[in-house]
Amino acid sequence: MREIVDLAERLRGFAAERDWEQFHTPKNLAMALSGEVGELVAEFQWLTPEESKTIMNDAEAAARVRAELGDVFIYLTRLADVLGVDLAGAAHAKLDESERRYDPATYRGSARKAPPLDRS
Amino acid sequence: MREIVDLAERLRGFAAERDWEQFHTPKNLAMALSGEVGELVAEFQWLTPEESKTIMNDAEAAARVRAELGDVFIYLTRLADVLGVDLAGAAHAKLDESERRYDPATYRGSARKAPPLDRS
Amino acid sequence: MREIVDLAERLRGFAAERDWEQFHTPKNLAMALSGEVGELVAEFQWLTPEESKTIMNDAEAAARVRAELGDVFIYLTRLADVLGVDLAGAAHAKLDESERRYDPATYRGSARKAPPLDRS
Amino acid sequence: MREIVDLAERLRGFAAERDWEQFHTPKNLAMALSGEVGELVAEFQWLTPEESKTIMNDAEAAARVRAELGDVFIYLTRLADVLGVDLAGAAHAKLDESERRYDPATYRGSARKAPPLDRS
Repeated sequence: MREIVDLAERLRGFAAERDWEQFHTPKNLAMALSGEVGELVAEFQWLTPEESKTIMNDAEAAARVRAELGDVFIYLTRLADVLGVDLAGAAHAKLDESERRYDPATYRGSARKAPPLDRS
Repeated sequence: MREIVDLAERLRGFAAERDWEQFHTPKNLAMALSGEVGELVAEFQWLTPEESKTIMNDAEAAARVRAELGDVFIYLTRLADVLGVDLAGAAHAKLDESERRYDPATYRGSARKAPPLDRS
Repeated sequence: MREIVDLAERLRGFAAERDWEQFHTPKNLAMALSGEVGELVAEFQWLTPEESKTIMNDAEAAARVRAELGDVFIYLTRLADVLGVDLAGAAHAKLDESERRYDPATYRGSARKAPPLDRS
Repeated sequence: MREIVDLAERLRGFAAERDWEQFHTPKNLAMALSGEVGELVAEFQWLTPEESKTIMNDAEAAARVRAELGDVFIYLTRLADVLGVDLAGAAHAKLDESERRYDPATYRGSARKAPPLDRS
């Protein structure tokens, strides 16, 4: 049930068994995360927004997207663990801020005025 | 304790209150994720790998890194939720595969031979 | 008229005057490129594909997009220069390959079958 | 000799022959650029900065890096062309600004104080 902590622990073991901690500097892990996100983005690049909503109906594309999401989450979790950052805590802190900034009444239905969920 | 599920639920409410679901197509969310990862990578770009290990000792940089990690996790969680993908399950499935592929005895200490944690 | 060579030369001088060559390793420059592309992608993330076509009609967005494209081209040119790669030559070589691979008769109007301009 | 203009023209013809202009919206091209940059970054992720300097001595890695640089330049050129932006002009305009901002005497040898070549 402790989804992130459990994954982080498994990744620690995985790296230790292979003596790969030496490669898992924050700099390298940020690059690996970036590379995996690039692969994920590529799955959606030629689809219309509408088509992107039903990508999981295509079994082959769905398997690739699921695998890429897994890769991204792996490197994100490993990076946060190496840095000692609580991912969920960091996300909720950003959301607290976004809730204050983007008053629902003002920003309702407008991406123009309120582009990011969480612009910092 | 259900870190991902709880965050996904909060994000669903956040988007619904602002009528932002219309903007949260998988295509758009993948782009937002990519943009946030770009900001995260930028924090490390001029640091040596060694320097990147101690970035959290600098209070200002630490706050930025924590915020960027939060942003990345927000968009990753929202994207997976919109696609109906179980992030932790997808990550563990990829790790199962990596454990089979990268035998510790063979790949010990070698990034050359086994670059990614999880190349798919 | 030698657009890339001229820019590469100017960048060499810029880095030398500031003693920044030490930071311009290919690894660091690839990260900087990635960060700038993240900023560029962010400009388009909430726009529909149709809206993205007219982004340059909005003076503020146009200035940001132009600046981001400039940044991306700067780091791409600097990275290629540091690696000794002829950017235009590399691009034309990839296009030669794509022209062979994507026969117009077969791939006409289909992004599904021929997603990338140049998948390698 | 007009490196960018010539490539942009070839790309226009390439897209037209395949009726692919419909896919080449700025939004889609920005995503494609991001995906290619992800592949490029991945080539450097496990290398030390020192190792990254000699990557072109490895024939296989060199071929991959050259191909990725070509891909990135292709999408960057196509995106700028579709948007009507002069890439070289945009880059020089950013550099004019960086020259003013980063006085050589002040920023000499310091990546801390002057992280980006061109932070906008």
